[in-house]
Amino acid sequence: MSNINQNLINRRSKALGPTYSHFYENPLQIVRGEGVWLYDADGKKYLDCYNNVPSVGHCNPHVVDAICEQARTLNTHTRYLHENIIEYAEMLTATTPEDDYVALFVCTGTEANDLAYRIASTVTGNQGVIITENVYHGNSTLVAELSPSEGRDHPRPDFVAEIAAPDSYRGETDANEVDKAIGQLASHGIQPAMQLIEGAFENPGLFTPDKQYYHDMLKKTRAAGGLIVIDEVQSGLCRQGENFWSYQNSGFVPDIITMGKSLGCGHPLAATVVKRSVIEKFGKTTDYFNTFGGNPVSTAAGRAVLQYIHKENILQNVHDTGIYFRAGIAKLQEKHNVIGDVRGKGMFIGIDLVKDRASKEHAPVEAARLIELLREEGMLISTVGVKANVLKVRPPLIFNKEHADIALGMMADAFNAL
Amino acid sequence: MSNINQNLINRRSKALGPTYSHFYENPLQIVRGEGVWLYDADGKKYLDCYNNVPSVGHCNPHVVDAICEQARTLNTHTRYLHENIIEYAEMLTATTPEDDYVALFVCTGTEANDLAYRIASTVTGNQGVIITENVYHGNSTLVAELSPSEGRDHPRPDFVAEIAAPDSYRGETDANEVDKAIGQLASHGIQPAMQLIEGAFENPGLFTPDKQYYHDMLKKTRAAGGLIVIDEVQSGLCRQGENFWSYQNSGFVPDIITMGKSLGCGHPLAATVVKRSVIEKFGKTTDYFNTFGGNPVSTAAGRAVLQYIHKENILQNVHDTGIYFRAGIAKLQEKHNVIGDVRGKGMFIGIDLVKDRASKEHAPVEAARLIELLREEGMLISTVGVKANVLKVRPPLIFNKEHADIALGMMADAFNAL
Repeated sequence: MSNINQNLINRRSKALGPTYSHFYENPLQIVRGEGVWLYDADGKKYLDCYNNVPSVGHCNPHVVDAICEQARTLNTHTRYLHENIIEYAEMLTATTPEDDYVALFVCTGTEANDLAYRIASTVTGNQGVIITENVYHGNSTLVAELSPSEGRDHPRPDFVAEIAAPDSYRGETDANEVDKAIGQLASHGIQPAMQLIEGAFENPGLFTPDKQYYHDMLKKTRAAGGLIVIDEVQSGLCRQGENFWSYQNSGFVPDIITMGKSLGCGHPLAATVVKRSVIEKFGKTTDYFNTFGGNPVSTAAGRAVLQYIHKENILQNVHDTGIYFRAGIAKLQEKHNVIGDVRGKGMFIGIDLVKDRASKEHAPVEAARLIELLREEGMLISTVGVKANVLKVRPPLIFNKEHADIALGMMADAFNAL
Repeated sequence: MSNINQNLINRRSKALGPTYSHFYENPLQIVRGEGVWLYDADGKKYLDCYNNVPSVGHCNPHVVDAICEQARTLNTHTRYLHENIIEYAEMLTATTPEDDYVALFVCTGTEANDLAYRIASTVTGNQGVIITENVYHGNSTLVAELSPSEGRDHPRPDFVAEIAAPDSYRGETDANEVDKAIGQLASHGIQPAMQLIEGAFENPGLFTPDKQYYHDMLKKTRAAGGLIVIDEVQSGLCRQGENFWSYQNSGFVPDIITMGKSLGCGHPLAATVVKRSVIEKFGKTTDYFNTFGGNPVSTAAGRAVLQYIHKENILQNVHDTGIYFRAGIAKLQEKHNVIGDVRGKGMFIGIDLVKDRASKEHAPVEAARLIELLREEGMLISTVGVKANVLKVRPPLIFNKEHADIALGMMADAFNAL
């Protein structure tokens, strides 16, 4: 680590305080990005297999040009008429054709999930929320309570009930789990306003749910009076390579879909997409205004991302690259016993590290070591899961087979050096 | 209204649903902005005396260049080291020299206020919040409860208590108001976590508080165990023309300062600025990460705004233009009995319309009519206050005496036509 870095770290700690944490033992100082590549202050190049926000690549010129052109022309808010928000809302809801949806624009996934709760609790008259264990949905006062992966300094509130994540490797997928959650809420006299659930489970360990399980479970929540809110902030926007949104893999039609992170390829843009029948009930009592949400620049960014996805056939790329990449990782698994399970779809890949394949005992120390070894190799990933033993491989959606070959080479070296 | 507009309105209603509202009886379609001017789709020009978000002017080239340069280079997040966030945090906390503050970056004023509550409730161990009547602090599940100006479809929760706004025209400023609020919370067994208060009261009707009142009141909340959180989202960033932040007019040193709207001149950027002693207690139990908050592009935007403010001596401009503008409005008051009170500081001006100067009866119909007359003249303002009878005059901070003369001419015509 250079002296410049140490100086920056000291200044950072002074100006930003103790709630800001870094990746890596020695923080990375990234200064430039292009496509799937990031460059540090010393000119070292990293293949980005971690960041899901730069969906169509770091500094994608089509998106940057759209942002700059609009920023030079006008950036106001949604209380004046503007083409961009309308066009973008039309384009976005065209990707969710299963029902008559409308789009509400916000700035962050947190705001999208928080607004979903305002809508669901108002429309149902209920207060309860069913979530998945170890999930992350955001950081507002309300949504932090729905994000057990962040930890709590106080007991779980009565209006929140957790179901086990469907662990396809060590556990089971049991739709009856949700009955217990509904019962737990009922024991406090609370009915569910919503079940907030990912279309594919990222923080619990990158599990993709079984269709039947998903349908059976969500139907039970609906029968108990709750709306179904699918959080697509991490799992959606072509990431699974099968459909535009991960809920579409199951065929279940949600009441609300929340979107964020990848929507603006780095520009702060998120959305709460709501069935018209639901938003009409909410709109009777509530006006919702978000100063920056849906402004002309944000929606220009979002529109450019969708245009690029359609023009470059990104969904097909994610599908094909995912199959190729996972096959390569499966080859590594043949050689390295530490790889217990390779799972996921598209650019949403989990590599479950174990001390022993029979016991499936979690190997978090090995996972942490691999992250650092791969950093040295020039490849960025991270860990996830209840025991932080799952390698999270989640590159930008423009990642192709050539990139996969480079990644597989670096992973082979890192596993050999473990 | 053109056919194009009607077509857009229909498409908007279909794609966005019923929670989106417009300004004006016939919505304005703004297509271009430059400095203090906005242009509609028919080429008509409007002097913007409403928008506080474009702080240093619509499409300020210094800010737009900074955004574009950084967007073309890199846009990641705060878990890698980056100069921008550190420099910007240093520049921002240099404007709050009264204590040792650190900056936490988020995307919206809502997120800034919501995070302030997470910090205050964690650090104090209390739950209660004291707010001002008819105030607006944001739209998350938590912050919407602290925003009575938005209305509620359910009773006020027990953890919220309101004090009357210090009405310098019709009412009184009574610091003992806060005793009642503390007592009301106590009657539910709740202690205050924080008093959330603006440095100058916008939604209640653009009142600026008396220093003694402010000190006396906030000391009482502190004595009851609550932190003092000043919401500067609307009142700060040189807007009052006296100091950088409105709390500095009173000399009171807050525990937390929240900032938003104007910080990024339209780019989604907001901040929660916290005393180091407070954030260190919070940081012991909580890591806070906001995906887009403090990213390199957002902080480049914020830095460019501060650079422009310093270089162009914007605080002095706001001060001088404010005096000149208010003097011109006071001249209109001599001629028009409907103007009951002209108040405010800097570019934060309220014109209180009355049916009769003796009774001070609110004149909301006249206020609404004036908004429309001024739109016809080519000037944008809005109304505010419990009865919506106060004209809210709140231009970008680069508004100068020449602009004030143009505005005064249009206001003279509109008042004559009323």
